[in-house]
Amino acid sequence: MESLQNSAEEQQCTFYKDNSWSKKQESANTKPGVGGFVLVHAGAGYHSESKAKEYKHVCKRACQQAVDQLKAGALAVEAVAAALVALEDSPFTNAGMGSNINLSGEIECDASIMDGKSLQYGAVGAISGFKNPVLVANRLLSEAQKGKLSAGRIPPCFLVGRGAHEWAISHGVPPCPSEKMTTKFSLSAFKRNKRKMELAEKMDRGHNQTKKRRQSSGNENCSECLDTVGAVVVDMQGNVAAAVSSGGLAMKHPGRVGQAAHYGCGCWAENACNMNPYSTAVSTSGCGEHLIRTMLARECAAAMQSEDAHQALLEAMQNKFISSPFLASEDRVLGGVIVLRCSRCVEPQPSTNVQGSLVEFLWSHTTESMCVGYMSAQDSKAKTHISRLPPGTVPGQSVAIEGGVCRLMSTVD
Amino acid sequence: MESLQNSAEEQQCTFYKDNSWSKKQESANTKPGVGGFVLVHAGAGYHSESKAKEYKHVCKRACQQAVDQLKAGALAVEAVAAALVALEDSPFTNAGMGSNINLSGEIECDASIMDGKSLQYGAVGAISGFKNPVLVANRLLSEAQKGKLSAGRIPPCFLVGRGAHEWAISHGVPPCPSEKMTTKFSLSAFKRNKRKMELAEKMDRGHNQTKKRRQSSGNENCSECLDTVGAVVVDMQGNVAAAVSSGGLAMKHPGRVGQAAHYGCGCWAENACNMNPYSTAVSTSGCGEHLIRTMLARECAAAMQSEDAHQALLEAMQNKFISSPFLASEDRVLGGVIVLRCSRCVEPQPSTNVQGSLVEFLWSHTTESMCVGYMSAQDSKAKTHISRLPPGTVPGQSVAIEGGVCRLMSTVD
Repeated sequence: MESLQNSAEEQQCTFYKDNSWSKKQESANTKPGVGGFVLVHAGAGYHSESKAKEYKHVCKRACQQAVDQLKAGALAVEAVAAALVALEDSPFTNAGMGSNINLSGEIECDASIMDGKSLQYGAVGAISGFKNPVLVANRLLSEAQKGKLSAGRIPPCFLVGRGAHEWAISHGVPPCPSEKMTTKFSLSAFKRNKRKMELAEKMDRGHNQTKKRRQSSGNENCSECLDTVGAVVVDMQGNVAAAVSSGGLAMKHPGRVGQAAHYGCGCWAENACNMNPYSTAVSTSGCGEHLIRTMLARECAAAMQSEDAHQALLEAMQNKFISSPFLASEDRVLGGVIVLRCSRCVEPQPSTNVQGSLVEFLWSHTTESMCVGYMSAQDSKAKTHISRLPPGTVPGQSVAIEGGVCRLMSTVD
Repeated sequence: MESLQNSAEEQQCTFYKDNSWSKKQESANTKPGVGGFVLVHAGAGYHSESKAKEYKHVCKRACQQAVDQLKAGALAVEAVAAALVALEDSPFTNAGMGSNINLSGEIECDASIMDGKSLQYGAVGAISGFKNPVLVANRLLSEAQKGKLSAGRIPPCFLVGRGAHEWAISHGVPPCPSEKMTTKFSLSAFKRNKRKMELAEKMDRGHNQTKKRRQSSGNENCSECLDTVGAVVVDMQGNVAAAVSSGGLAMKHPGRVGQAAHYGCGCWAENACNMNPYSTAVSTSGCGEHLIRTMLARECAAAMQSEDAHQALLEAMQNKFISSPFLASEDRVLGGVIVLRCSRCVEPQPSTNVQGSLVEFLWSHTTESMCVGYMSAQDSKAKTHISRLPPGTVPGQSVAIEGGVCRLMSTVD
């Protein structure tokens, strides 16, 4: 049994951008026995300057919710769920409240959560009527940990549609009428997208190019509304967890499930073990079909076992995503990831029974922008940042990568 | 452009069991320009001797359907879909017709298909009202290959529930009333399982051990009704494809999606490329939750890039499945795989413009038994086999592994 204890003189956060490191000391309160770190994002897509304040505010709230849980002694998996609830509750993100509306005018959400300690996983796909789909996913995860159901039946880890809705109700997750989840913003986006779609189809018919319809259509839809949200957490005991939640692509077909519900694609969390020196947690965002076919969350987590985290993530984004043979036919490969890895970096000293953990946190995206927030349990408030592709680079073909490090000190019993 | 041409004197099938190889020449018809190979299975689970004949018959039909396609010049992906249709149409398998009935008395199916040439993938989860779910998955795959939808929307690769049903109807896939998909056998199994479940719950209540309910229940359900079906194919051009279809676990919760719809878990197919010397195709069967959490299809495909296919598959089943850290809390890990890998093994000779392909095909399972069938396009009929764990070994803790090799000769233009 060990507990984490951050101290002001020991904690050190370094923020780096691309390969140029600029050391920056974080202020921190000292509170014995409290530790952990959270990194969240409000979507990889396009974040206008006019809404920058709202996106940052959402990320701050999400970090604070996770840190409140960590301070109360919660495990990483509970803290990451708390962060996701805050992200889902915001009308500005494409998750929970204000999710994208599908072709039929309905909201269907995907969400999943993974616990790096137990390696358990819970996911829901195309679920309607819950403002916090991540809580249903988390409930699936915790129910599965209780073992088999009656008559030796194996508990489900992935439920979809109406069946997922009924399961959640029967397990006490409070429902929310779909109309309450629709916002002015999501409704006007739906109407705008519908007009755009009808116009595109009319133009195609007008040109009598039915067979070439798909090729002739623009891909203006790709860079909008990809605001799947996610979070990664390490708790005071060094456990990691990751979660993701999404309303899916705008004007998607009902029943479409994206990467947010897909094992290995939307999120990944794995504590260090004999095979892996680092604990890793990853959450992805962007075009679900691209993220599924490249299994980006798991690929990034695997890459994080290399020594140089920054270089490994850059190579993963370039080789396993943009240049992936699985997406060879795609002209623009749109996505983003947040990544956290944690390692014991200082040997415990017998005289002090203190050992250190190094938390490295990174984000990377091929979309125009990505809004992130991060906070350690010792910080008084979260830092937020809107990362953008360098001017002149092409979304879907270029990678932005940034991140930082945070040193946590833990006491060993 | 090249075409495969098997000839009686060149084709050589070797059947091996465990590590003792027993060479056995296959009879074959010679028909220029025709080639390819199919391996199918009717489920990893328990196959009683009394039904052995039916299971073998199903496998034979499935092989014949695939070979008919190959002979007509179809690509691997079409041939593998044809094999799956035959497997789904049988009332003896847990896929399509006669699928397991869920808790609500309904049939919900999962299926997916992957094309090793394009690396495209299509999947449906918890879909009702189609006797051939694989055809919906295949239609998703082929629609995605046509490129973007109107207004730049990305076509879905994974649809579930009611939305999947509606999409299939709108794309001309013929529906089938659920009551027609129920068989005497599936209905009597449902009634038996329901009684068993009610009895187990009553006993738990009687013992006032509500909290311990799950631990006290037996796992007699695990070894039954795991008859997810699948097939792997290599066509005359050396392309591979894989598919899988399942009615899911007996008495599953509505909306539960198993590995058969899960990318990387139910099936995998990847043509050889610069990175990979072998083309590989895999299809899995067994307890969906175990197969999801271990991503068994993709793990086995990756292992098949090692030199010794037999040894690599054995290690994958032992280290990535039975002893997987992702299933550390499970007492019995139940599943099976069929695997095919293909490599150019003879350099083309300028005088003959002929080159050879070596097809290695294997099956492995931790369940009590697995019924397989295999056939090359030159064979007059399929071979079938019910593989069983050696007597005295424990299902879920031991591995059976068998397979063979088949040499195909191709003409190079």
